[in-house]
Amino acid sequence: MNTSIRALEREMLADIPLARAIDLRIADADGDSLTLAAPLEPNINDKGCAFGGSLASLLTLAGWSLLSLRLRIAGEDCDVYVQDSRLRYLAPVWGDLRATARLADGEDWKSFFGMLAARGKSRLRVLASVPGENGAAATTLEARFVALRRVVNLGAA
Amino acid sequence: MNTSIRALEREMLADIPLARAIDLRIADADGDSLTLAAPLEPNINDKGCAFGGSLASLLTLAGWSLLSLRLRIAGEDCDVYVQDSRLRYLAPVWGDLRATARLADGEDWKSFFGMLAARGKSRLRVLASVPGENGAAATTLEARFVALRRVVNLGAA
Repeated sequence: MNTSIRALEREMLADIPLARAIDLRIADADGDSLTLAAPLEPNINDKGCAFGGSLASLLTLAGWSLLSLRLRIAGEDCDVYVQDSRLRYLAPVWGDLRATARLADGEDWKSFFGMLAARGKSRLRVLASVPGENGAAATTLEARFVALRRVVNLGAA
Repeated sequence: MNTSIRALEREMLADIPLARAIDLRIADADGDSLTLAAPLEPNINDKGCAFGGSLASLLTLAGWSLLSLRLRIAGEDCDVYVQDSRLRYLAPVWGDLRATARLADGEDWKSFFGMLAARGKSRLRVLASVPGENGAAATTLEARFVALRRVVNLGAA
C-alpha cells in the first residue's frame, strides 16, 4: 500500500497546482482512513489563522484521496469527482493543518465496489475533520463523491 | 467605491497566500453583488477541469469580499469569518473561473448593520455561484458569515 500512497501523493501534487500551493502530503493511510497534512504558513488568512478555502481544499482532497487510494489498490481505473459538501468552521485553526477522512455512517466499501462493478459508476459519502484544541473538531466536512470508470478507447486501428 | 475595491483586492492578495495561488482579482462589485475572477490554469485538477478546492475557495472569498467591502464602505472595522457552507458541484468547469456572490433570500443589509451596531457582532447568509454552460450554475455555495468589530486596545499609556 505504501507504494500506492506515494504514487497518489506524487500525482496529486503534479496534477493539481493548488495541492502544491497548500503544500500538502499524505501523512497517514490505512485503507479505512486517510490523513493529509499541510503547514499553516501557505494556508494562513488575514486573521493569522487557517484560511477557510485552504481548509475546504484540504478536507475535500482528504476525502478524494481516501476514495482514490482504495480504488487503486482494488485495481480500478476511475475518475473521482466531488458532488457536494457541507463544511462547518467550528473554531479557528492556529497551527499546522491535518485533515482525516473516513466513510460516513451507513457507507461500506463492499456496497461501493458492488455498485461500481454493476454500473461502472458508484457514489460514496465521506466525513473529514481537522482537529482543534481539546480533541474537538475545528472544521468538519461531509461530502459525496462519485467514481466513474475511465472508458478505454481501443480505437479503430 | 472603486478605491475600496482595489484596496480590498490588494489586502486579500497580500494577506492570503492561497488567494495569490488562485490568482484571483475582483472583477466587478456594485455593493449588492461582487464577482471574483481567476484563470483556469492555476486552478486545474487531474481531470483538466477546475479543482473543487479552488472553486470552494473562490466562492467563499466572493462571499467574504462582498461582506468585507460593504463593511469598509460603511466605515466598520471588522474581522469577517465564514461559519459554515454548503457546496454543490453541478457540472465541471472547463474555462476560466468567475464567482458572483449576493445576499441569500431573507437577508438585508439594514438588519445586518442594525445587529452590528447593537451587539458589535452580526451574521449574514450569502449565495454565490460559478456560471456553467447555457446560463445554468456549474457550482453553488450557500454560506453563513459572521462579522466581529475589532476591539481597539487603547492601552494604559
